[in-house]
Amino acid sequence: MKKRIGIVGAGTAGLHLGLFLRQHDVDVTVYTDRKPDEYSGLRLLNTVAHNAVTVQREVALDVNEWPSEEFGYFGHYYYVGGPQPMRFYGDLKAPSRAVDYRLYQPMLMRALEARGGKFCYDAVSAEDLEGLSEQYDLLVVCTGKYALGKVFEKQSENSPFEKPQRALCVGLFKGIKEAPIRAVTMSFSPGHGELIEIPTLSFNGMSTALVLENHIGSDLEVLAHTKYDDDPRAFLDLMLEKLGKHHPSVAERIDPAEFDLANSSLDILQGGVVPAFRDGHATLNNGKTIIGLGDIQATVDPVLGQGANMASYAAWILGEEILAHSVYDLRFSEHLERRRQDRVLCATRWTNFTLSALSALPPEFLAFLQILSQSREMADEFTDNFNYPERQWDRFSSPERFGQWCNQYAPTIAA
Amino acid sequence: MKKRIGIVGAGTAGLHLGLFLRQHDVDVTVYTDRKPDEYSGLRLLNTVAHNAVTVQREVALDVNEWPSEEFGYFGHYYYVGGPQPMRFYGDLKAPSRAVDYRLYQPMLMRALEARGGKFCYDAVSAEDLEGLSEQYDLLVVCTGKYALGKVFEKQSENSPFEKPQRALCVGLFKGIKEAPIRAVTMSFSPGHGELIEIPTLSFNGMSTALVLENHIGSDLEVLAHTKYDDDPRAFLDLMLEKLGKHHPSVAERIDPAEFDLANSSLDILQGGVVPAFRDGHATLNNGKTIIGLGDIQATVDPVLGQGANMASYAAWILGEEILAHSVYDLRFSEHLERRRQDRVLCATRWTNFTLSALSALPPEFLAFLQILSQSREMADEFTDNFNYPERQWDRFSSPERFGQWCNQYAPTIAA
Ligand SMILES: Cc1cc2nc3c(=O)[nH]c(=O)nc-3n(C[C@H](O)[C@H](O)[C@H](O)COP(=O)(O)OP(=O)(O)OC[C@H]3O[C@@H](n4cnc5c(N)ncnc54)[C@H](O)[C@@H]3O)c2cc1C
Ligand SMILES: Cc1cc2nc3c(=O)[nH]c(=O)nc-3n(C[C@H](O)[C@H](O)[C@H](O)COP(=O)(O)OP(=O)(O)OC[C@H]3O[C@@H](n4cnc5c(N)ncnc54)[C@H](O)[C@@H]3O)c2cc1C
Repeated sequence: MKKRIGIVGAGTAGLHLGLFLRQHDVDVTVYTDRKPDEYSGLRLLNTVAHNAVTVQREVALDVNEWPSEEFGYFGHYYYVGGPQPMRFYGDLKAPSRAVDYRLYQPMLMRALEARGGKFCYDAVSAEDLEGLSEQYDLLVVCTGKYALGKVFEKQSENSPFEKPQRALCVGLFKGIKEAPIRAVTMSFSPGHGELIEIPTLSFNGMSTALVLENHIGSDLEVLAHTKYDDDPRAFLDLMLEKLGKHHPSVAERIDPAEFDLANSSLDILQGGVVPAFRDGHATLNNGKTIIGLGDIQATVDPVLGQGANMASYAAWILGEEILAHSVYDLRFSEHLERRRQDRVLCATRWTNFTLSALSALPPEFLAFLQILSQSREMADEFTDNFNYPERQWDRFSSPERFGQWCNQYAPTIAA
Repeated sequence: MKKRIGIVGAGTAGLHLGLFLRQHDVDVTVYTDRKPDEYSGLRLLNTVAHNAVTVQREVALDVNEWPSEEFGYFGHYYYVGGPQPMRFYGDLKAPSRAVDYRLYQPMLMRALEARGGKFCYDAVSAEDLEGLSEQYDLLVVCTGKYALGKVFEKQSENSPFEKPQRALCVGLFKGIKEAPIRAVTMSFSPGHGELIEIPTLSFNGMSTALVLENHIGSDLEVLAHTKYDDDPRAFLDLMLEKLGKHHPSVAERIDPAEFDLANSSLDILQGGVVPAFRDGHATLNNGKTIIGLGDIQATVDPVLGQGANMASYAAWILGEEILAHSVYDLRFSEHLERRRQDRVLCATRWTNFTLSALSALPPEFLAFLQILSQSREMADEFTDNFNYPERQWDRFSSPERFGQWCNQYAPTIAA
């Protein structure tokens, strides 16, 4: 008898899982509150870059519609402001790629439907889960960071923050020239905030995502509260001013005459993310075990771009485990966590660590940035390890590890 | 610089780890309270059978002194008493092998010493650990089930029992004829106890270990309290009587005239084991993380013969992780547990489950034994999975899984 899996939520988590399962002839039904046609009329959802390991999964799932060689980027530029600014670059071993999710998600939905995935367009509430769980061998909940999160227990030891750590201002822009190598730029303005610039495919072709991670109470916070719609010109002028002051390595490539949102006034998103890490399973009152996947399990601040990559990774592992087992209970959840937990949890830890380190800038972190800026080998390693957050955590998780890593590259500089 | 590892305890855990590390040129120092020469004068330590997966490790460690083809056994005979006794057999895919640890441990110690392992013969106390930990990159504690256990925190969720679940009477005997296939016999006397008979190499050649797992308060408990030394003949007569009554499939192969301890009055061990599962690491006051290995982490009742097999498995994994990493802290312990925990914990769970099921004999467990007795294929699978306790736990961990497994073989019987 065919296995039947119910999936609530059609984000990257649910869709990568659905596509994986359909490749293995598992019966899949997706419940989601948005039809593919609605996406083009939505406000910007996020600005997601897929790392090479995620693109590899897309190749395997046969949904690599926008190849990274053409639409992707090849490394990270870093800029650290201060009295003696640092500028350096690190290579990715294989390119990453960002596509506006308002294009990407409906493409996946259509692919999944074409391959026999069933779709029910309806909002699901926590109360519906019991009933749904009875209809499937396993119910997977992946409704993202806001909805239904309370169904899965928050792990306090892995959830250090109760509030957003940054006041976000995120938009898709035009009028920004590409850097010499098509790359992400990560710009740090000490005491004020971070900017992540991502070459992104959107409705009108290539555009530039700017993710402004503004420190709360800083000179940049105003960007999270100033509305484009109230006065587009005033907003853009404010952006130009703040970028020029805090993020010059990006500002210097902006043509002020061309600078505007890439498609429409929907291209901007402001607010904040509360990082949280939750149990990956819950037991419903009817005794059924359900699995949480993606943001609903691990919500991270976008500063390191890990959320969707983890959602895709965890979906793949869950798919493999669904194939390997036939009873989906607490023991199954142990098998699953043993495989997915390290990377997913380390993405959370590394992101939370980075948020705090970039706010407080302790001397050893500044020393690290200095060494990183001087050792291309270390910068390459650090950059490519965006694919492997558990390896980053092996470096960052204690002063001893951090010190050992830095020392390993320090001689390269002296020599 | 060579890594330096300190190992406290020269049981299977410490010696397999030491041998593994020496194969990879890691500097190893073993602290233990017993010299190799002392072992032949000791009371029986246990009666340990090494499963094929453990023998494989011994081959890899180049210490397979007593090949299983010659000294080992090839399957399990099962006997379930009651109004309609069941007798059946299951094959091992590759042979297991039992050697008296009073022969085995000194052989390993000498091999390790010959390969450059250093030995310090001294009893180590909990207070010594800090000082020792400063001298090594990592200190591993594997002093067995009694000593230093309190250093590692007991996990209450995995330690259901506060007292021994069986009154043990364990001895090495002569005068018991081999069964048609050289095999372990597991005999269950409902309400009274279990007997595990293991063909075992000892000082005088092949002998027979009898592990009597007597239910507390049963007709058999007296065996755990009657002293051989007080009156050898009376003890042997009592054994013959009880074996005849409760464990006939073994008793029928005994020659009463020959039946006695195999070497000397030291060949008998009585008492009980309190099962416990502890954290696999501890943080000392000096901030150092130490690792617990073998019985000190997971003490199991001998009914399923898992303790030393887990100690060897966990030693191997720890060896690999020591090679793969260079900082031995809490993060290291996560890497380690992610790899060793499932099998080791499942050995504990499966053993504890079996102790309870064999005491209470719930109807579904009796039904399982019935199906097992009728399906050779299932009995083979169950028998060979003594190598893989995590797979047994996949079968036993819930009524649904248990039922699904039984149903899979039930049709074989009907047909
Ligand atoms: C500004 C920003 C930038 C980011 N940049 C990156 C990046 O560079 N790299 C990266 O990897 N990640 C990034 N992320 C994170 C990434 O967006 C998320 O981690 C990812 O989209 C989570 O996928 P998901 O499938 O878990 O949830 P979502 O994508 O949120 O999908 C949830 C799905 O559930 C549906 N749904 C919601 N509620 C219900 C309901 N009640 N009933 C039925 N359906 C429901 C939704 O319609 C949607 O289909 C960024 C996030 C933000 C905000
Ligand atoms: C009756 C019986 C039957 C068994 N049958 C099986 C079986 O069939 N299969 C199986 O896999 N397991 C079996 N076991 C379990 C097995 O014996 C143990 O799991 C295994 O021996 C544990 O190995 P270890 O290295 O952790 O500890 P141990 O073998 O107990 O070794 C501990 C070491 O530490 C040393 N030491 C102790 N205290 C100190 C100190 N303070 N300072 C320095 N050194 C110290 C000791 O001298 C020894 O060298 C059985 C056990 C019993 C009791």
